[in-house]
Amino acid sequence: MKSFLAMTTEERQAAYQQEKAAFEALKAKGLKLDMSRGKPGAEQLDLVIGLQTVIQTNEECFDGDLDCRNYGNLMGIPSCRKLWADILGVKVEQVMAAGNASLNLMYDTISKAYTHGLLHSDKPWCKLEKVKWLCPAPGYDRHFFVSETFGMELIPVPMTDDGPDMDVVETLIQDPQVKGMWCVPKYSNPTGCIYSDEVVNRIASMKPAAKDFLLMWDNAYCIHEFDGDFVPFPDIIGLCEKYGNPDMVVEFASTSKVTLPGAGVACMATSEANMKYFMKLLGFQTIGYDKMNQLRHVRFLKDKENTLALMKKHAAVLKPKFDAVVNGLERELGPLEIAKWSHPKGGYFVSLDVLSGTAKRTVALCKEAGVVMTPAGNPFPYGKDPADSNIRIAPSLPPKAELEAAVEVLCVCAKLAALEKLLAE
Amino acid sequence: MKSFLAMTTEERQAAYQQEKAAFEALKAKGLKLDMSRGKPGAEQLDLVIGLQTVIQTNEECFDGDLDCRNYGNLMGIPSCRKLWADILGVKVEQVMAAGNASLNLMYDTISKAYTHGLLHSDKPWCKLEKVKWLCPAPGYDRHFFVSETFGMELIPVPMTDDGPDMDVVETLIQDPQVKGMWCVPKYSNPTGCIYSDEVVNRIASMKPAAKDFLLMWDNAYCIHEFDGDFVPFPDIIGLCEKYGNPDMVVEFASTSKVTLPGAGVACMATSEANMKYFMKLLGFQTIGYDKMNQLRHVRFLKDKENTLALMKKHAAVLKPKFDAVVNGLERELGPLEIAKWSHPKGGYFVSLDVLSGTAKRTVALCKEAGVVMTPAGNPFPYGKDPADSNIRIAPSLPPKAELEAAVEVLCVCAKLAALEKLLAE
Repeated sequence: MKSFLAMTTEERQAAYQQEKAAFEALKAKGLKLDMSRGKPGAEQLDLVIGLQTVIQTNEECFDGDLDCRNYGNLMGIPSCRKLWADILGVKVEQVMAAGNASLNLMYDTISKAYTHGLLHSDKPWCKLEKVKWLCPAPGYDRHFFVSETFGMELIPVPMTDDGPDMDVVETLIQDPQVKGMWCVPKYSNPTGCIYSDEVVNRIASMKPAAKDFLLMWDNAYCIHEFDGDFVPFPDIIGLCEKYGNPDMVVEFASTSKVTLPGAGVACMATSEANMKYFMKLLGFQTIGYDKMNQLRHVRFLKDKENTLALMKKHAAVLKPKFDAVVNGLERELGPLEIAKWSHPKGGYFVSLDVLSGTAKRTVALCKEAGVVMTPAGNPFPYGKDPADSNIRIAPSLPPKAELEAAVEVLCVCAKLAALEKLLAE
Repeated sequence: MKSFLAMTTEERQAAYQQEKAAFEALKAKGLKLDMSRGKPGAEQLDLVIGLQTVIQTNEECFDGDLDCRNYGNLMGIPSCRKLWADILGVKVEQVMAAGNASLNLMYDTISKAYTHGLLHSDKPWCKLEKVKWLCPAPGYDRHFFVSETFGMELIPVPMTDDGPDMDVVETLIQDPQVKGMWCVPKYSNPTGCIYSDEVVNRIASMKPAAKDFLLMWDNAYCIHEFDGDFVPFPDIIGLCEKYGNPDMVVEFASTSKVTLPGAGVACMATSEANMKYFMKLLGFQTIGYDKMNQLRHVRFLKDKENTLALMKKHAAVLKPKFDAVVNGLERELGPLEIAKWSHPKGGYFVSLDVLSGTAKRTVALCKEAGVVMTPAGNPFPYGKDPADSNIRIAPSLPPKAELEAAVEVLCVCAKLAALEKLLAE
């Protein structure tokens, strides 16, 4: 195939007719496919059925002396806190093991900044005239929604292959109204990049004007390689401390994509001073998280090494799916010069950039042909992609055959949308 | 024994010497007993070990077509919503099945009123100059803490044997700054009273000046009889609707004292209009609660009838413990005219009123003798019992022998404190 950009108008018209016919043929199939959300597939869920029967007797309900069935222990059970400390490379004292959803912990952290203020806040953020928030984009839509629901002004920061553009960040944080930033440091959602050591060090050593600046460090994919061995990552809490920002960061992780998305164990890690502050506030919100599920996880996952071995099993399921997406894009769009895409080795997404101005149209055409994609623009603050170019692809849920069919549809739609635009110019 | 009130000074002095000696003898035993919190005892926890193995295969992880292992379904799984609807006598559409803690749901409800406002609010409560809150007292300390942490002014309302004093409530709600009220309608914490039908109807038909008045209906002990058969209760949501207040009430319950305190399933029930409003806000906070634990509960509890049968087993454990407390109080304090106490048939507490002005002293003496009680005053707003008279007794956790020893200590301390006061007058 020839580059669309290099084609004459006549060639583009011919290509358009061809893709239009292909589109109509696909549409006629009445497909019902979904590449919209990063949900693990059934084969992955089946890997962890052992969780459900790992505790069988009353005697097994204890973590040391602690009866995990009863009330209490807001910080979580000791063995689960230790497992998370090992995985994240932080101190046990810095970790709280919690409920089933790290998003919930993130929301609650920001909610408490809003209602009560943080450790170094002069007053609750709800009493401030304006709060601004840095959103490296493309990023995770649910992060941005949390900031938005608390009325914050979302400020996009360009993403590079090494993480957020730190020149931009370092300028923006001189504004005292800028109170925080979202980060997904490893296999960033959706580009799949890993923040470089240089970027992580620049982040940890920031000197924000706001003394209660909150670095939201969502380490969602900390052990989520699907291609190759576990890649170690720096301890952001230790780094922030080293650079004189001991209470700036709160780190989050969960087993949602290690064990079960709806029934895993999330954790939060931060300085001991922050933890003490949050515990005081959290003590009004709940008596404790589900300690039986924490215990179930510790008994099943055992330790970091065994958890990494489980991740290899997930990888064996995921790698062929990601290959199907990337190979499909390469085969169908490679020579056309209308798109580029990420080649992640972990995480849950492929980030596709189609011809500028055609992402919305491409996703609309996909929908017409029975393929649900994440809405174009979603990975950007307020759902607005300035270039209308980015499409997030989530390959994990559909079986491989469905995925191949869906990628075929996506490519035809991207081509059709590009040709429509080029012909209209 | 003679009434302390009828004694001469000399008789009181003699009684004082006697109780003082008894106190020192108990103190010398080096006891370590706890009647401070409403935690189920080990024997109760052992009743539900079947929960842990009720799901064993991947196929069993489905609720109908719904895979409970994956993300989604914020309202909870259909079968669990139905079980709660049956127990509470409300419509399935009015119920959300959630995580392990109803306190968390209550906090989140009030937090959202504070950060976003309720369905009928003009603005978020954090933007108001002042919010006042009605606290029937004695009541549940954790309720009052939630209101207090959001800066509300707590207004005590006297409790009667039939529930809150509605003459007082009906006057107070004419103030538009009064935005809500805590209620534990059945086996109220700590008095154990059941709100009468008249009181419940007066509550449901209130006409508060605040159009976004929030009735927090914590039905914590809805099926928690330990003496006698299940006592039916009115559907507060239907009643509020009948009286033209369809969106005034949110009801809460949980299996914390049916299955496991740390790992049960909580629920929230309210009008469909309210539910729609809350779901929109909750959707930013979490992708969903732990559906596997919901499924585990449905498979184990089966239905309302079977759940009530389980409650009879709890009753068989609890009744002798409550008898030990009430009989001990009767035996030791009965003739003395310095105390009265509740005679509950359900719930988790006995409410003891000692001689006015001696509750704090009694609890301090208990502590000295190795018996931990709930701090005196805790069941009142700001921890302040105006009469310094009320002491909450939680008989559920200690084994019966320990409980009898603890009650003995409590009675000696109550007598000693009373005699100290009477002799000083």
